[in-house]
Amino acid sequence: MTKRLHGVIAPVLTPFNDKLEPDVERFIAHCRWLVDNHAGLAIFGTNSEAASLSVGERLSLAQALVEAGIPAAMLMPGTGACALPDAVELTRHATRIGASGALVLPPFYFKGVSDDGVFAYYAEIIERVGSGCVPIYLYHIPQLSQVPITLGLIERLLERYPGTIAGAKDSSGDWKNSKAMIDNFATAGFDVFPASESLLSQALPIGGAGCISATVNMNPAGIHRLFEGWQGPEAAKLQAKADAIRTIFQAAPMIPAMKHVVSSFAAHPSWRRVRPPLVALGDAAGGEVLARLDAAGFDMPGYPRRPQ
Amino acid sequence: MTKRLHGVIAPVLTPFNDKLEPDVERFIAHCRWLVDNHAGLAIFGTNSEAASLSVGERLSLAQALVEAGIPAAMLMPGTGACALPDAVELTRHATRIGASGALVLPPFYFKGVSDDGVFAYYAEIIERVGSGCVPIYLYHIPQLSQVPITLGLIERLLERYPGTIAGAKDSSGDWKNSKAMIDNFATAGFDVFPASESLLSQALPIGGAGCISATVNMNPAGIHRLFEGWQGPEAAKLQAKADAIRTIFQAAPMIPAMKHVVSSFAAHPSWRRVRPPLVALGDAAGGEVLARLDAAGFDMPGYPRRPQ
Repeated sequence: MTKRLHGVIAPVLTPFNDKLEPDVERFIAHCRWLVDNHAGLAIFGTNSEAASLSVGERLSLAQALVEAGIPAAMLMPGTGACALPDAVELTRHATRIGASGALVLPPFYFKGVSDDGVFAYYAEIIERVGSGCVPIYLYHIPQLSQVPITLGLIERLLERYPGTIAGAKDSSGDWKNSKAMIDNFATAGFDVFPASESLLSQALPIGGAGCISATVNMNPAGIHRLFEGWQGPEAAKLQAKADAIRTIFQAAPMIPAMKHVVSSFAAHPSWRRVRPPLVALGDAAGGEVLARLDAAGFDMPGYPRRPQ
Repeated sequence: MTKRLHGVIAPVLTPFNDKLEPDVERFIAHCRWLVDNHAGLAIFGTNSEAASLSVGERLSLAQALVEAGIPAAMLMPGTGACALPDAVELTRHATRIGASGALVLPPFYFKGVSDDGVFAYYAEIIERVGSGCVPIYLYHIPQLSQVPITLGLIERLLERYPGTIAGAKDSSGDWKNSKAMIDNFATAGFDVFPASESLLSQALPIGGAGCISATVNMNPAGIHRLFEGWQGPEAAKLQAKADAIRTIFQAAPMIPAMKHVVSSFAAHPSWRRVRPPLVALGDAAGGEVLARLDAAGFDMPGYPRRPQ
């Protein structure tokens, strides 16, 4: 069995070029910088605008990373989709490239669906991919999916597929829920990742596996220091520093704000682009975010700048 | 310019075989029966479980209908998708086959998005498909998409793309909203279809274009008689009859209930199948729906039964 991906993981931002196509080169460069800063790569998460990418685009971006030498063991691609065949195809590809895991969103169009229906979705994916299926992480993000990953569902899935169901990302922001997931299932080898570094100091002592957080895209080194140092004398200081940066991004529309900031550090304007229905930050709003970050001493050390 | 599709339109159910693949033959047969009963075909709507179909499946089902001789003028495929390239590909195909229109859902993963972002989505589709783009119908179904088609958005789109923006389906169930759409835009040639035949008697007198309703799959002839006869002496009776049938389906999980009933009239058990996250009706619940329909004198005259 492959070693599980623990620690600090980024739901990797997806850069677009001027035609709104994924910019493969800049994507690879961003992933390299994250890996160099000890971050795992949850490509195709919410912050990756994965819902706005076609299946073909997701497959070829993942393939491009592997071909560029990014270790597959650092990858936890998002492979969930509303359409079962899409989810199967994406999960099969994650399996084939040897990804460390797949972070699987439930189907999110229909609302008020039953645990039976969501169970059937995960079961069909696992059965269709077949033996050797990549470890599956359940993606709980009720504010967007509106389809929760309940504790009862986790229990049923773990019972039926103990070798494959590997953990969850909890994006609810509800610490009580993350704690319940950890308390109930961590000893069964179920790895729980809250979606914010702000919860690391609470999650790690009780058995949380790390975090998969938007702002790992911005501050991988700082969050990694916190992950490594949560038992050390600097823990409170590291937590406060990471929180201060996160707070600035959280005050803005987060994806456009993060892209605006990368655009500045990469010296590349098209990094600002988002796909509809999101809207890029204008100069004024983006400048404000940059000014606040600057005042907080924020940096993205070593971020690859566009060749002049 | 092609003649616009008005009147009674079915968001066509999608049958699956035992492998949960779309059952093309049964799909064609269902569409033929609907057309024979004067219904237009909004293939790939909510009730079609379109969100649960891959782009490839949607393309090949639409293609199969045209090749089977179903008139493209009767088709209003759903071509919306979370990912812009998918929506463009589907809308381009609808254009190519000469469909009467395309019913375009907004991207529905991100919540709380701005009208600017939704405008950009529709604008990109229309611009990318280019000249000759199929007439676009906006799909307002806030309870599932959570992204409303606001009156302000319609106004902006009509102003920018007057030749292409053709109307809307209003699935909000909020008569005040349907009425506002009709009152504001019907004279500009904007065709408003409430999502229930129960609103026909209110919508038609003020300029509504018809209805695109789930239960047209079940009762196309009855609803068409109402559409034709809303000014006649039988209007109230026809409305009451159609409502009585709709009420029975509305009391159950609607898609599974409709499929259960088709399964019975088609004498084909796999018609009951739904894709996850939906769950098929069991024998008991399905039998109850059938019994209530029977008591109401329901029939699907001429529905093609499986060859014995």
